Amino acid sequence: MRILILGGDGYLGWPTAMYFSARGHQVLAVDNYLRRRAHQEAGTDSLIPIPQSLPTRAQAWRDVTGYTIQVAEGDLTDWSVVEPAFRDFQPEAIVHYGEIPSAPYSQISREHAVFTQYNNVVNTLNVLFAMRDHTPNAQLVKLGTMGEYGTPGIDIEEGYIDIEHNGRTDRLPFPKLPGSLYHCSKVHDSTNIHWACRTWGLRATDLNQGVVYGIETDETKLDPRLTTRFDYDEVFGTALNRFCLQAVIGHPVTVYGAGGQTRGYLNILDTLQCVELATINPPAEGEFRVFNQFTEQFSINELADLVQRAGMEYGLQVQVEHVDNPRVELEQHYYNARHSALLDLGLKPHYLSETLVESMFSVIERHKDRVITSAIMPKTKWRPERRVAEPAAT
Amino acid sequence: MRILILGGDGYLGWPTAMYFSARGHQVLAVDNYLRRRAHQEAGTDSLIPIPQSLPTRAQAWRDVTGYTIQVAEGDLTDWSVVEPAFRDFQPEAIVHYGEIPSAPYSQISREHAVFTQYNNVVNTLNVLFAMRDHTPNAQLVKLGTMGEYGTPGIDIEEGYIDIEHNGRTDRLPFPKLPGSLYHCSKVHDSTNIHWACRTWGLRATDLNQGVVYGIETDETKLDPRLTTRFDYDEVFGTALNRFCLQAVIGHPVTVYGAGGQTRGYLNILDTLQCVELATINPPAEGEFRVFNQFTEQFSINELADLVQRAGMEYGLQVQVEHVDNPRVELEQHYYNARHSALLDLGLKPHYLSETLVESMFSVIERHKDRVITSAIMPKTKWRPERRVAEPAAT
Repeated sequence: MRILILGGDGYLGWPTAMYFSARGHQVLAVDNYLRRRAHQEAGTDSLIPIPQSLPTRAQAWRDVTGYTIQVAEGDLTDWSVVEPAFRDFQPEAIVHYGEIPSAPYSQISREHAVFTQYNNVVNTLNVLFAMRDHTPNAQLVKLGTMGEYGTPGIDIEEGYIDIEHNGRTDRLPFPKLPGSLYHCSKVHDSTNIHWACRTWGLRATDLNQGVVYGIETDETKLDPRLTTRFDYDEVFGTALNRFCLQAVIGHPVTVYGAGGQTRGYLNILDTLQCVELATINPPAEGEFRVFNQFTEQFSINELADLVQRAGMEYGLQVQVEHVDNPRVELEQHYYNARHSALLDLGLKPHYLSETLVESMFSVIERHKDRVITSAIMPKTKWRPERRVAEPAAT
Repeated sequence: MRILILGGDGYLGWPTAMYFSARGHQVLAVDNYLRRRAHQEAGTDSLIPIPQSLPTRAQAWRDVTGYTIQVAEGDLTDWSVVEPAFRDFQPEAIVHYGEIPSAPYSQISREHAVFTQYNNVVNTLNVLFAMRDHTPNAQLVKLGTMGEYGTPGIDIEEGYIDIEHNGRTDRLPFPKLPGSLYHCSKVHDSTNIHWACRTWGLRATDLNQGVVYGIETDETKLDPRLTTRFDYDEVFGTALNRFCLQAVIGHPVTVYGAGGQTRGYLNILDTLQCVELATINPPAEGEFRVFNQFTEQFSINELADLVQRAGMEYGLQVQVEHVDNPRVELEQHYYNARHSALLDLGLKPHYLSETLVESMFSVIERHKDRVITSAIMPKTKWRPERRVAEPAAT
């Protein structure tokens, strides 16, 4: 298959590009290095050093495996980048990671919020129009997030819910309570993609992904030049990845607030499996399919406990510290989200274990001289102190 | 009260500015003339000529009534326009019409779709940030649309629905099935505003308005210079307004498709009442309140019949023609939408009648020499002919 990977330079995008290439698919990876630039601006960086560009990474991949990954450097909000990727490459599947993926990033300032929504909404609209005009039978595999649902008081279904109301019934989109302006941008995407499927007959799968953890895949392990990035800072680091790093460097594991916040989690290896399962089992024409992509639910306190226990085994003294929650979210709540569709397609989960956490410790340890400790603690608040309003003009 | 009217130059914005000014409120109207420019680009225009700018309109208002409407010309996607309007004017209520209001406009091309979503989403984000930072206790009165809901198979509630699922219950946002990329942009706004209320404690009312008809209000009738615009073209004209114009000029009334499409409708006089009722009964801190703002449901066929009957009375020979539907929508469907919240606040509806239609005929007749007939028939298709995809590069 011809597979277009949007955001192909990212934590998940690059491993996905290699994963499909290793299985004989023709891959084109596109990225504009937005994540790298955001790190530069913030004075932060990936823990694990990665090659300087997509062409360098593709060259290393060719050197190590003999396989070719085509690459293109460009911004998906720019139609002159998007159109040729569809018109000339003619993808059969589009795996779309090409978005700003961070809730804290979107909450830094008004400018960051506007940019997050502009970037994510416009590049996905461009993808939909490019599909309509150049590859109407291709399928979109779009990375969404479980954070679109928030924490409702009822069980979360996979994208849709049958509602009986006043004696009538319909299957409707599951209501969304996104937790940040980034999560809102993903809800906007879902709304737009669903519309495009209903109206233009496009095929799409929205993978509402949980929090991903893990560092290594079969392909990243082949050579140090094939590694993927690993973020631990307050803006791009995800919970378990950050906790493991904190444990290794002797920093307390920082639980935001009470720690009862419960979410879905999955191993990066399962992200690759899920994206492949969606791709090889395409939706029907006009179908907007939603899968909840995670394998286990944990509260933040459970993760902190796990890291502490694994640390003990490994010989690390791990402190757990509850810090003021920079986010506005429920810290104790009902949470039960269905995640059976991908299992039905054949997903074989890699469950979280102390062994996995210890293997993450060992990778992190190799790079611990690169840690920028000032980047770890949360600075970005969901509800900043209110400025005193200036008096009205008279 | 100090009331900021965003989109104060529009079909509803200008009458709203006068309505509040006439009742002793201090009004600042902001607009960037986007609607006027869109008409210029398309070679179309308002049936009724309107003064050339907001300052000219405000001057006429002062001449006729002695009241002052402050005005500002600027683009709400530009923070240097939005911030001073909040910081210096210190509005207590913000009535937000400042968006592209047309489904066909958003469907003209990729560029129009992207611009519609960019414009509407970014200017509403700017409003939310300005409220947070400069007027956190003010209330937002946001014009949404009934089109956010689409045509689900169950009764439509006002913004939220109680869902019982697997033995648990929660009150959640009513699921949305928007019918165009414009309608999607309004869903995006609702998602963002709801988030801002939950997170920052802002107060907002989303007025999910039906299709507005009517030409005159108490204030527009005071002087020809105080009139509001009247659009009948395929892009900005709404169904009943367009039908009345077609009847007057001897053009067949053009029903799109089978004509069973049912929507909520209201008189422009009731728009003004509803906006006032929302404003004088503000939501609580952190409350995102949704009202369905219409007074009656009609199918397109019912409206065409009404215009035909009123035409008979008035001495017009009205033909009804079913044309290919340029939209992708159900042409026969269940539709039952609640609209009791505004009635409970005291709304006294002006129901649609043959008399009202005849009074519209008479206003339209005065300006019928200005009609651009080539602008009436639909050219913008929701599902354009698919281009033949070009072959893959080898």
